[in-house]
Amino acid sequence: MAAPSARYDVLGIGNAIVDVLARAEEDFLLAQGMRKGTMALIDAARAEAIYDAMGPAVEMSGGSAANTIVGLASLGRRSAFVGKVKADGLGRAFAHDIRAAGVSFTTAPAADGPSTGRCYVLVTPDGERTMNTYLGAAQDLHPNDIDAETIAASAVIYLEGYLWDPKHAKDAFLKAAKIAHDAGRKVALTLSDAFCVDRWRDEFLQLMRSQTVDLIFANEAELHALYQTSDFDAAVAGLRADIAVAVVTRSEKGCLVVGPEGTEAVPAFPVERVVDTTGAGDLFAAGFLAGLARGADDRTCGRLGALAAAEVIQHLGARPETSLKDLARENGLAD
Amino acid sequence: MAAPSARYDVLGIGNAIVDVLARAEEDFLLAQGMRKGTMALIDAARAEAIYDAMGPAVEMSGGSAANTIVGLASLGRRSAFVGKVKADGLGRAFAHDIRAAGVSFTTAPAADGPSTGRCYVLVTPDGERTMNTYLGAAQDLHPNDIDAETIAASAVIYLEGYLWDPKHAKDAFLKAAKIAHDAGRKVALTLSDAFCVDRWRDEFLQLMRSQTVDLIFANEAELHALYQTSDFDAAVAGLRADIAVAVVTRSEKGCLVVGPEGTEAVPAFPVERVVDTTGAGDLFAAGFLAGLARGADDRTCGRLGALAAAEVIQHLGARPETSLKDLARENGLAD
Repeated sequence: MAAPSARYDVLGIGNAIVDVLARAEEDFLLAQGMRKGTMALIDAARAEAIYDAMGPAVEMSGGSAANTIVGLASLGRRSAFVGKVKADGLGRAFAHDIRAAGVSFTTAPAADGPSTGRCYVLVTPDGERTMNTYLGAAQDLHPNDIDAETIAASAVIYLEGYLWDPKHAKDAFLKAAKIAHDAGRKVALTLSDAFCVDRWRDEFLQLMRSQTVDLIFANEAELHALYQTSDFDAAVAGLRADIAVAVVTRSEKGCLVVGPEGTEAVPAFPVERVVDTTGAGDLFAAGFLAGLARGADDRTCGRLGALAAAEVIQHLGARPETSLKDLARENGLAD
Repeated sequence: MAAPSARYDVLGIGNAIVDVLARAEEDFLLAQGMRKGTMALIDAARAEAIYDAMGPAVEMSGGSAANTIVGLASLGRRSAFVGKVKADGLGRAFAHDIRAAGVSFTTAPAADGPSTGRCYVLVTPDGERTMNTYLGAAQDLHPNDIDAETIAASAVIYLEGYLWDPKHAKDAFLKAAKIAHDAGRKVALTLSDAFCVDRWRDEFLQLMRSQTVDLIFANEAELHALYQTSDFDAAVAGLRADIAVAVVTRSEKGCLVVGPEGTEAVPAFPVERVVDTTGAGDLFAAGFLAGLARGADDRTCGRLGALAAAEVIQHLGARPETSLKDLARENGLAD
């Protein structure tokens, strides 16, 4: 039986995070012992130390799945987000920004406990971003925050691998995935980060093999980490065996869609200058899922992903600055 | 007797404000009853209403004199700032950003009372900014916040006209000006905004005529408001009679330096695309004062001002994104 028509094209569940972005030199990363291009989890004391050491910053709402969901709204898709902030200034900013982007966001903020989560993002002159995340209130996302009726009314549930880090979020994730499948919906997962894959490899593979997720997004580093191999083709063969559909992003080389009807390579969009890669993967997923929502073919989905990613890496910050719907129209990718 | 060598080239006193910037259409300004291109003072309730209505936003430290002082630091000048924040999240961000820019900032934050001041900045597609300021804790800047020793050790005190709005800040301003003059230092004032001039015209003229200030910065609209005339030449004649040195900024037409040795017109720097005019006047003042600090001629001071203004209007936000010192060197305006 086909699922009834959905209220939301995509509902995302993720860590609700405000980004604190600053430019930094390579030396700064070295001095701070940061691994360039990755995401490290930090505690409150380390968050203070990094903030004290870093340059003048800009605060912008972020969070991986949240960025994706905002991208979907910018592409004209109906979308919703579930994630935990505290009822503090940054939490207010996060809620304002995501709602002002047209996303339904109704998760109750935490009244006490740790402050709203923050990610200290250092952007080096080459445009690469290095992230340090203090999860804060995001740690307290709980299965009770998952509303069964809303999940069942969403065509796709999109989950970030980073959710495996906070204590209860995993249970919220599994609860949502079960409700979605029982309602005939699809479940998508992004592997998030190579170190995140290292932390949760077995569980991620289990999610794929048990068909708890139907679609995964991964970049090359995450894919290699997942199958513990440096052989790209072997890793892709692993994907083919383990999941119905996988999308592998390869930066300027575009992406590979690995599905039941074979493998399709889709080129990236050329970019004049990479200013800040923050949000590149998140926005790629937004474009791809927007294509899926309208039943587009793999190539169109991949091109929409590439277009959204190209927009976000040409400015500071992980959320689109222009209407992605207009951009899609200008590039012959309109609905 | 010449004043002893200074610890700071410029010490700024102003409202400590965090900007909340969002893009907006002209229709939004109309619907909200905002006057495009100006600064309106708003109360806490109106601040909430504007924030709820506006689009996704970015938080960045701002404040007129604070932006100028950060610009001076970026130009390699030793600088300090005096202004009041609350000990809250935004106050922490303001203090972090200005110190991380290399500015000395030691004003004690307010432990209670209103929250840190915010300016809701709406940037229209033409790059013009329309500002709505909730002064918050900035209202509580008090003469006790003025440290006589630090003021006396600063070659130039730079004050914003906006300081006339909060209750006690005016007294702080006058206290600082007297200390500075007693120590053989100079006092500069920016007129800030045409409506601010309308509110405080007589007091501003009195400051000039009593030689409480030695140098003023004004744009054309502020100048016309000051002398209540639409005749530019008549207004300039007024300036010549009322103050030793005045600098009138005229956007893409450059600036006019009106001094004891006559009047010099200095051209602007060409700009590819105006993204956001927020901070244009503030950064012009930074460049001009940086020139003064090294004893440059009027033309060089004006060109440095134009260069710093050109940098800040080509991106979102009121603080420089690149080293202005490097930019000055590349444009043949190095020390």
